Amino acid sequence: MGLTLAQKIISAHLLSGKPEAGQEIGLKIDQTLTQDATGTMAYLEFEAMGVDRVKTERSVAYIDHNTLQSGFENADDHRYIQSIAKKHGIYFSRPGNGICHQVHLERFGKPGKTLIGSDSHTPTGGGIGMLAFGAGGLDVAVAMGGGPYYITMPKMVRVNLTGKLAPWVSAKDVILEVLRIMSVKGGVGKIVEYGGEGVRSLNVPERATITNMGAELGATTSIFPSDDITRAFLAAQGREEDWVELIPDADAQYDEVIDIDLSTLRPAAAMPHSPDNVKAVEDIGAIKVDQVVIGSCTNSSYLDLMRVAAILKGKTVCPSVSLSIAPGSKQVYQMLAQNGALADIIGAGARVLECACGPCIGMGQSPNSAGISLRTFNRNFLGRSGTADAQVYLVSPETAAASALTGVLTDPRTLGEAVDIEMPGTFLINDNMVVEPAAPEDADQVEILRGPNIKPFPQSEPLAQTIDAKALLKVGDNITTDHIMPAGAKILPFRSNIPHLSNFCFTVCDPEFPARAKAEGKGIIVGGSNYGQGSSREHAALVPLYLGIKAVIAKSFARIHQANLVNAGILPLTFENEADYDTIDQMDELVLPDIRSIVEKGGQAILENKTKGTKMKVNCQLSDRQRAMMLAGGLLNYTREQA
Amino acid sequence: MGLTLAQKIISAHLLSGKPEAGQEIGLKIDQTLTQDATGTMAYLEFEAMGVDRVKTERSVAYIDHNTLQSGFENADDHRYIQSIAKKHGIYFSRPGNGICHQVHLERFGKPGKTLIGSDSHTPTGGGIGMLAFGAGGLDVAVAMGGGPYYITMPKMVRVNLTGKLAPWVSAKDVILEVLRIMSVKGGVGKIVEYGGEGVRSLNVPERATITNMGAELGATTSIFPSDDITRAFLAAQGREEDWVELIPDADAQYDEVIDIDLSTLRPAAAMPHSPDNVKAVEDIGAIKVDQVVIGSCTNSSYLDLMRVAAILKGKTVCPSVSLSIAPGSKQVYQMLAQNGALADIIGAGARVLECACGPCIGMGQSPNSAGISLRTFNRNFLGRSGTADAQVYLVSPETAAASALTGVLTDPRTLGEAVDIEMPGTFLINDNMVVEPAAPEDADQVEILRGPNIKPFPQSEPLAQTIDAKALLKVGDNITTDHIMPAGAKILPFRSNIPHLSNFCFTVCDPEFPARAKAEGKGIIVGGSNYGQGSSREHAALVPLYLGIKAVIAKSFARIHQANLVNAGILPLTFENEADYDTIDQMDELVLPDIRSIVEKGGQAILENKTKGTKMKVNCQLSDRQRAMMLAGGLLNYTREQA
Repeated sequence: MGLTLAQKIISAHLLSGKPEAGQEIGLKIDQTLTQDATGTMAYLEFEAMGVDRVKTERSVAYIDHNTLQSGFENADDHRYIQSIAKKHGIYFSRPGNGICHQVHLERFGKPGKTLIGSDSHTPTGGGIGMLAFGAGGLDVAVAMGGGPYYITMPKMVRVNLTGKLAPWVSAKDVILEVLRIMSVKGGVGKIVEYGGEGVRSLNVPERATITNMGAELGATTSIFPSDDITRAFLAAQGREEDWVELIPDADAQYDEVIDIDLSTLRPAAAMPHSPDNVKAVEDIGAIKVDQVVIGSCTNSSYLDLMRVAAILKGKTVCPSVSLSIAPGSKQVYQMLAQNGALADIIGAGARVLECACGPCIGMGQSPNSAGISLRTFNRNFLGRSGTADAQVYLVSPETAAASALTGVLTDPRTLGEAVDIEMPGTFLINDNMVVEPAAPEDADQVEILRGPNIKPFPQSEPLAQTIDAKALLKVGDNITTDHIMPAGAKILPFRSNIPHLSNFCFTVCDPEFPARAKAEGKGIIVGGSNYGQGSSREHAALVPLYLGIKAVIAKSFARIHQANLVNAGILPLTFENEADYDTIDQMDELVLPDIRSIVEKGGQAILENKTKGTKMKVNCQLSDRQRAMMLAGGLLNYTREQA
Repeated sequence: MGLTLAQKIISAHLLSGKPEAGQEIGLKIDQTLTQDATGTMAYLEFEAMGVDRVKTERSVAYIDHNTLQSGFENADDHRYIQSIAKKHGIYFSRPGNGICHQVHLERFGKPGKTLIGSDSHTPTGGGIGMLAFGAGGLDVAVAMGGGPYYITMPKMVRVNLTGKLAPWVSAKDVILEVLRIMSVKGGVGKIVEYGGEGVRSLNVPERATITNMGAELGATTSIFPSDDITRAFLAAQGREEDWVELIPDADAQYDEVIDIDLSTLRPAAAMPHSPDNVKAVEDIGAIKVDQVVIGSCTNSSYLDLMRVAAILKGKTVCPSVSLSIAPGSKQVYQMLAQNGALADIIGAGARVLECACGPCIGMGQSPNSAGISLRTFNRNFLGRSGTADAQVYLVSPETAAASALTGVLTDPRTLGEAVDIEMPGTFLINDNMVVEPAAPEDADQVEILRGPNIKPFPQSEPLAQTIDAKALLKVGDNITTDHIMPAGAKILPFRSNIPHLSNFCFTVCDPEFPARAKAEGKGIIVGGSNYGQGSSREHAALVPLYLGIKAVIAKSFARIHQANLVNAGILPLTFENEADYDTIDQMDELVLPDIRSIVEKGGQAILENKTKGTKMKVNCQLSDRQRAMMLAGGLLNYTREQA
């Protein structure tokens, strides 16, 4: 039987397990990346493992999240990461060099390789034919140390693209259509492979826009074939030797097939507050817009911004709209500055921000109260923009630029003849903002620079025989890691300071939660379905750990977050019968009797609600490796036990 | 007897008083400017005055301070100011259009005109031959309403420039030399006029660098003649018709003359933590540098950044240095993007920030802990960078760029042959980010947009017969308005929310002060000399008012802050005998008996220290107008009484 693209890469990297859907497999990891918001913690964990030098083919530490620097914490963290990278064999991409996924695609990504990154949008690499996963920082630390990366073998989804996009319709509209079809839960436990003749009409940055936002499907990852288009992109980056052809076997079997005729797509928008709340722009209508922001790892490529520049050239941003643009990489930024496109962007009145993640992660450019903001980003979760009552719409760069000129949500097809931007034959290549690591023999002389904001991470304990605690918080469906551990300009600088962060845990849902948790000393969280979707931040597990959370009982979990919970030693459980969710109220006293034995030996776990006098079945869906980790109290304890 | 340049402009604008040093004079104001951090409050005050349309020749509202937008507050304030501007006849410079002083120089400043601005660096306009003053927001509101601006007629200082700057020595080094000679107190009560043959070797942006940082001398303002160089600059801005010649009479009398031979100057730096702590770069030596930041209203002109680009071209920023650059205006930014200089800057690895004040006011780019930061700014007060223990050095753009490449403080003369940048014959003129006000007949239809962060300003009370309160805080010399009311990324967004701001008042000096003040309900502050230097922020008076401060007793006051105290209804008093300062301890109980009668009728004020059982003479140096204001409880009450 033939293999899919992803199955081929998996079988070439399989270290343990059977690659059958639902089975845990261990994969050899070729490359890793970190960004600074998750990276500080990942490198603290890497240090705790005591490995001298990374064992991957290429590991890169990027600085792209905490770039506003409203306080000493960020610059200290950047220096810490830079020194760690130098010492341990990691390439360091300096602040200003760009967004990790954009730069990695340009300069480091290789078809057929595996990549894990401590950022949920790491699947961007699928645009160039990598098998790329978002992961917790501890998983990345383990992979840097040469350990396997464990996933549950996913099901395979084929998205079959036919036809060609109409003028003014772009890659963002393709992934919005996939989100409309599959929903933010539709990709859970699946790899989404793109294929069909339509693939040939999409170049690498466009493919990367699509795989990037596959994260919003909940998918394990997304991937495109590596073909002549991939080869031309790599050649233009001076890396043709990194190319290999990668296509699925003709008789590959998929669990699910979705057909999309590109020629039928219209410019679309994901409406507040979910990336799958998608409608055609013309169907939403000309709502008044207060802010437009263009950039992020989803839509800040050379091609994206050249199209934006062409739309803006000689025009003026509507007086009632603030338009901000953040280029995705130094390469993109410098090319636009050289060819005059940036002058056109500035001339039209755009506010050009530092080349970094910026507003996408709530680092600045928060909209006005109840403001409507169009953004070319990947997430429009409630409050993520930094303004609690803002209404964020996710759109293509073309829709964003057109709307910035008119002041209302505008279908770019109304702009007349489409601009035709060619992919450059040669990109401007200058890696002078990537610092190479020290030679192994010089590593001893590299001093690790630690700032006072870097606090030790919380210690977890071996799983208790019985868990007996209150339902400290009950939340609904689709809770994101932004709900659990908010980011934004005021909180993100403290990513290496768990005690400080704990004051903000779940405050989006319930401002009293941190105080209640501290008063109780221990607790259980009750969640709905798709609990922990969104960003890969392991802080959404480490901070609850710090607050004494022993277990989370939900209808279902997002993949990365469930793994992060286990890594932190917090037990993830699912309701056998989802209706039982309704029988629990916040602050009910819950007991999981003999839970340690059940995790160890198997058997049906029972949750007793002492307050209500009820009992219900809960499932503990863990691999053998995860069971051992839970018993030990998380991955670090487990790693120490193994050593 | 001949007149100085400033005396000529003063006599052409004199509305009241005798222009004799020490006398209060009232001036007609031709132009006003505001920035957003002080502007929100200024426009609330303007609204309270009930004037329909500004009565100035030109009033401009700039957005340049709160541009990070880490929360809804800033965008709300921007919209509020934009709507106020539209309604009341004020030009609105949108976020992204640049720093108020740079843009005002380029597009609005006129030789011979008077300008007041709610920003202490408004004297930048002196570079183009304006008589330009930093003022409190309330003063600006009064001037917009057509009222006079009152100052104490200053003494006249002539700085006589001879010779010509050596290669790699620049305007910043000139003003650093003036600061070295005069100190941060040396300009108090004085106008500094530049003259002599050396003036002809300095073009308008260079002159503006010098007048800008005259604010750090404590000077009332600084001014250059308007000559052929000024004419050429205005012509290149398409505004030759705005030019008039302005030179002092040959027999003008000056109270003080300072001679500087430009050819003897060397690249200099103001060392931590005062702008007058000046030494030659080569004498300081090659200290290791962690951060370099280029920009601000002092040094972000086309000429400055073209020189920086020439130094950086084809090079790479030292791996241990973070270099950030913020262009001063959209005009500068777009010109650099058109001519390739920006591509050179990006190529070298600079982090290019939004065109705004940014790091100069602590809005981002805080250095690492104990980091050494070279900045082309005007202030290096302790903590202003956002990092409490950072060491900030103020330098020229040339010194900054040279040091960014080497990683140590570097004399740019070591770079070899100097770059020769020509002033452009024509600047790129595009005012599309300046929104014109509504026509008077349409003003009624403009809705004022208010966000929830805008809180009413505190009410003051008529002066009590006797002030009886504790010395809630005792501070030393040269206390800045940054000490009194810190700014920075975490606090500045709340400039229209005095109750919130009050939690940060004086916390740099004493974290317990706000709580102590709230517990006591009233108090007196005891200060040293030059109390209230630095930024013009009236919040440094309004917040103490909110906290119940009734009087400040100091050895001496900075001009703008003293006026702001009176405007707020807080009594500024000076020790007759400075040694008495030493006899007061914090929390001593102080009494000013019959102070209302003394303010009203004159006579010697006595301060009784009940705790120590001592008495001392204190002076109440107010003009008649200020006495009336104090009795009424500040300028707003006074204005209401007059109406």
